[in-house]
Amino acid sequence: MEYQFLSNIHSPEDIKELNEEQLAQLCSEIRECIISTVAKNGGHLASNLGAVELTVALHRSFSSPKDAILFDVGHQCYTHKLLTGRFDRFDTLRTEGGLSGYMRPDESEHDPFITGHSSNSISAAYGIYRAKRLKGEEGTAVAVIGDGAMTGGMAYEAMNNVASGRNNFIVVLNDNKMSISRNVGALSRSLTKMRNRPHYHHFKFALSHFLLAIPLVGRHLNDLFFSIKESIKGLVYKNNIFSSLGFHYLGPVDGHDIKAMEALFQVAQTYNRPTLIHVVTTKGKGYSYAENSPKNYHGVSPFDVEEGASTEGKPSFSDVAGQTLVELAEKDDSICAVTAAMTVGTGLSDFATRFKSRFFDVGIAEQHAVTFAAGLASGGMKPFFAVYSSFLQRGFDQVLHDIAIGGYPVRLLIDRAGIIGEDGETHQGIFDIPFLSSVPGMTIYSPCCFKELRDCIRKAAQTPACCAIRYPRGGEMFEPALDFSGEITCLPGTGKKAIVTYGRLSLQAITLQSERPDLHVLKLNRVYPIAEQAIDCLLPMEEIHFFEESIQSGGIAEQLAAKLLQAGWQGTYRIHAIDGCFVPTASVASSLAATGLDLDSMRKAVSL
Amino acid sequence: MEYQFLSNIHSPEDIKELNEEQLAQLCSEIRECIISTVAKNGGHLASNLGAVELTVALHRSFSSPKDAILFDVGHQCYTHKLLTGRFDRFDTLRTEGGLSGYMRPDESEHDPFITGHSSNSISAAYGIYRAKRLKGEEGTAVAVIGDGAMTGGMAYEAMNNVASGRNNFIVVLNDNKMSISRNVGALSRSLTKMRNRPHYHHFKFALSHFLLAIPLVGRHLNDLFFSIKESIKGLVYKNNIFSSLGFHYLGPVDGHDIKAMEALFQVAQTYNRPTLIHVVTTKGKGYSYAENSPKNYHGVSPFDVEEGASTEGKPSFSDVAGQTLVELAEKDDSICAVTAAMTVGTGLSDFATRFKSRFFDVGIAEQHAVTFAAGLASGGMKPFFAVYSSFLQRGFDQVLHDIAIGGYPVRLLIDRAGIIGEDGETHQGIFDIPFLSSVPGMTIYSPCCFKELRDCIRKAAQTPACCAIRYPRGGEMFEPALDFSGEITCLPGTGKKAIVTYGRLSLQAITLQSERPDLHVLKLNRVYPIAEQAIDCLLPMEEIHFFEESIQSGGIAEQLAAKLLQAGWQGTYRIHAIDGCFVPTASVASSLAATGLDLDSMRKAVSL
Repeated sequence: MEYQFLSNIHSPEDIKELNEEQLAQLCSEIRECIISTVAKNGGHLASNLGAVELTVALHRSFSSPKDAILFDVGHQCYTHKLLTGRFDRFDTLRTEGGLSGYMRPDESEHDPFITGHSSNSISAAYGIYRAKRLKGEEGTAVAVIGDGAMTGGMAYEAMNNVASGRNNFIVVLNDNKMSISRNVGALSRSLTKMRNRPHYHHFKFALSHFLLAIPLVGRHLNDLFFSIKESIKGLVYKNNIFSSLGFHYLGPVDGHDIKAMEALFQVAQTYNRPTLIHVVTTKGKGYSYAENSPKNYHGVSPFDVEEGASTEGKPSFSDVAGQTLVELAEKDDSICAVTAAMTVGTGLSDFATRFKSRFFDVGIAEQHAVTFAAGLASGGMKPFFAVYSSFLQRGFDQVLHDIAIGGYPVRLLIDRAGIIGEDGETHQGIFDIPFLSSVPGMTIYSPCCFKELRDCIRKAAQTPACCAIRYPRGGEMFEPALDFSGEITCLPGTGKKAIVTYGRLSLQAITLQSERPDLHVLKLNRVYPIAEQAIDCLLPMEEIHFFEESIQSGGIAEQLAAKLLQAGWQGTYRIHAIDGCFVPTASVASSLAATGLDLDSMRKAVSL
Repeated sequence: MEYQFLSNIHSPEDIKELNEEQLAQLCSEIRECIISTVAKNGGHLASNLGAVELTVALHRSFSSPKDAILFDVGHQCYTHKLLTGRFDRFDTLRTEGGLSGYMRPDESEHDPFITGHSSNSISAAYGIYRAKRLKGEEGTAVAVIGDGAMTGGMAYEAMNNVASGRNNFIVVLNDNKMSISRNVGALSRSLTKMRNRPHYHHFKFALSHFLLAIPLVGRHLNDLFFSIKESIKGLVYKNNIFSSLGFHYLGPVDGHDIKAMEALFQVAQTYNRPTLIHVVTTKGKGYSYAENSPKNYHGVSPFDVEEGASTEGKPSFSDVAGQTLVELAEKDDSICAVTAAMTVGTGLSDFATRFKSRFFDVGIAEQHAVTFAAGLASGGMKPFFAVYSSFLQRGFDQVLHDIAIGGYPVRLLIDRAGIIGEDGETHQGIFDIPFLSSVPGMTIYSPCCFKELRDCIRKAAQTPACCAIRYPRGGEMFEPALDFSGEITCLPGTGKKAIVTYGRLSLQAITLQSERPDLHVLKLNRVYPIAEQAIDCLLPMEEIHFFEESIQSGGIAEQLAAKLLQAGWQGTYRIHAIDGCFVPTASVASSLAATGLDLDSMRKAVSL
């Protein structure tokens, strides 16, 4: 593929002089480039395909980096990367040392803030905006946020704050009618109504565009025109949640019509009040497979462009968790499943279909999800909240305050625990062990294989207490023929050296023991609280290596060290964990190696 | 005081037969009782005085505990306690072993869920509601939430979820125009507009009340009446944020008019859709001091009823933090202060007045506050976010994701760290050490006296890195003439026994050393990361006692143990911290004693 236009774009300034036809060609090239790159490297496809024209219009209407443009989550920032001098490196997307799949300030001056978790863009961009005003700098900040991310409470907190004062801060709502799956909730319904209004803006903004182009008096005429228009009831559909919160609402506008969007972006910059521009886009636009099934093309693994992405695959821990819940729910009608917009990702599709009344997708709203589950539990149900480890960080206070103080039996199914691979820093599931083990009354399990996961979930269903079952992304390495039903599994060796670990690293330890029968292997089946048995089992050892796919500070290795020290144990103790750093984009295998947690590192560590 | 009516109320059923005059007398008695009890025990006064009639109307219109009534935060639940069989014990409010100042399910079957932190009531109540529907039980669940709490993102997440489907869930908005200080943000402005609308409901609901009372056909007539009314534009002011989110909006209604509220509560129960009832109350109602200055009577220490509460007091760590920020801001115009509705509580009143453009009260919105501060920092400002330890739990993900990954120099001023006293479980600041020390790149300080706090803040202002400075509620014990400018302060003893600690407990250790010169005292000035020097200083010891006003799991004592063990240290190691439990209501002194952290416990521990 020749990228006639794209290969000549080195900064957003380069697209400002292109004519309509050239822009259409550019957008077509951008789509080609995104599709072929994601087909090769995996990544977020449908959301990025939907935001091509929107991003082009933004960069033509604003001046990055003077104007900070912040894409929420970053599932829609690929076009932005291509237009801001990163076309040459775009084939390194989501690879080790390559471009991140999200915005990263250390990657480009055009990325004003870190992204990855949902719904934080208005807060961050408004901070940047206020800093510019305080420092008397030129430029503005724009938050571009999806309708899915708009269900997160943080976005609302930010809007409430932004609109509390006079400013000309701009929010662009990229409404593609989806979060990751189909968007849910009242906001979604409200947006549908708004989308279905007659498109007055076509007339209105074409006129505005014309007026603004008139030298000297244009802006005055435009202001006058709008002050009259505002008073004409019903011309603009302005009674909505955004206008209630004090935003001036513009839209909806066709998110694939560059000229129409540009008109709105320019008009918005003339206002002296916070403005929200409602842009309607088609998720997956320009790639028929993705357009027809955006849900399946949200985040994809490498695929064949002609044949489309495969929905088949090896079973994952998520699948097994979902299946197990279905089996339990068949026999026990108090079993409920809660998800925060991750029905597919956490393996709950089947549950959602079969037990509709007991399935709750609450939107991208982890705080609410946790407390709602606690409410269900206090009412006598058995809720399982399936959530990615890094997203549960959003619900930490709720786990502590709303689950633990009252002791409500909410079961947390923590998916994507440990190293997660290509999504990088923002998505690593390496903090749940410290924050969950600090919660009084919490019990943590970390199964290493599907069978153990099933057993953990079944046990949790029978036990009226809160607990967390954490498991990795993807499939199992193998299923050992061992019994993991106790608090610990102790595989004695012939020597005085022990490996202690939990979760999938246990399988590496078991493998290593087959080479080195002198090694003791202690697998913590119940990770927290640490079983007394574990201490007894370790006291005779002379050297202990703890391997842990977690941040070290506050992890189990340190907690075990404290127990051993207090028990008077003396010997060589080595912690192998992630010590005070984030883990960047790389394959899981590569990240495990880089953090000293792969089989080879394990082998070397115990051989010193 | 004789409580003629109140002393005869043993359950909410007992108020259902009272006539209007009797109810007025009851409300008057309730106010007397609340004022005199809070004057004696301290507590939340103004918010509770505002909600007397509202609570009476709720209990007359619903049937607790069949209907779960959940008061958000619990700053407005005293009347509820008095009406649900707890009058006899009300004088034990906020005392050790006595009634909690918040709702507690283990205290009464009428308290359906734990409260304490803001904005969680809709989530929890909706969970309870759905559980009732799934189990086919009778009754409903009602969330009663203040306009302040309504600025929390969690409330919005919950509303979005509630209104996504058909149900008759009821939210009561107690709009007293305040959060803890004056309420801020766009929502607040929006509510003001709504309050100022003509009170159509007076007519409307008096009529409805009349219609519903007609046997057999009343409900039908009422439905018919309302279906017509709904179509008459403008009769009800319904285009607001709640109606945008899919709630049926009723109100505003005078929150001191029991009959009017009852009419609304009864009508709402006949609807088959989520309903929000907007009740307008006067914070501090019935006690002139509190009514005139509700901000100063939100939470009060014991006071004289005739003379009112004193606003004077000994300086607190909060005051010193606020003063120091003011001094810094005078010389450095990049210093900003951010608070989440805690201007007074965190000592920022003076800053707010003097540096208006650099002061940001974002509402009860800790998530937004953290990320907004990170945005300010990325734009070159020096933001300090002053927040209570237990409320920062809400912003954990944002500290990790939005501050730490990008390394933005946001300074966290963590007030109410450690044991906080009468507010009990929900407000203890004992989790910040584990969760903050798990954040890569974080530095934690824990000053023991005002001078050290000032020095920490000044140092933080000069250092372009994120950090957390945590300090206790209230004033300093004393100011030792010692140098705390290094990473550690090591006060050598003559023996081989050491106390290691940080924060205010250091002062106890110093005191103890004056009795026991054999003791080494190691104070961690920089709590995290643990200085290498600390290890060097401890290696010669034979016995180490670590005292820590924190949850043990993931705390510094365990982390130090791991370091010592790995350094090959051998000896007796004892951790004195809060081990896997919440700390209930009691005075600070009593809680420290109960958790083995007071001077006496320290003395005993090192004498064994």
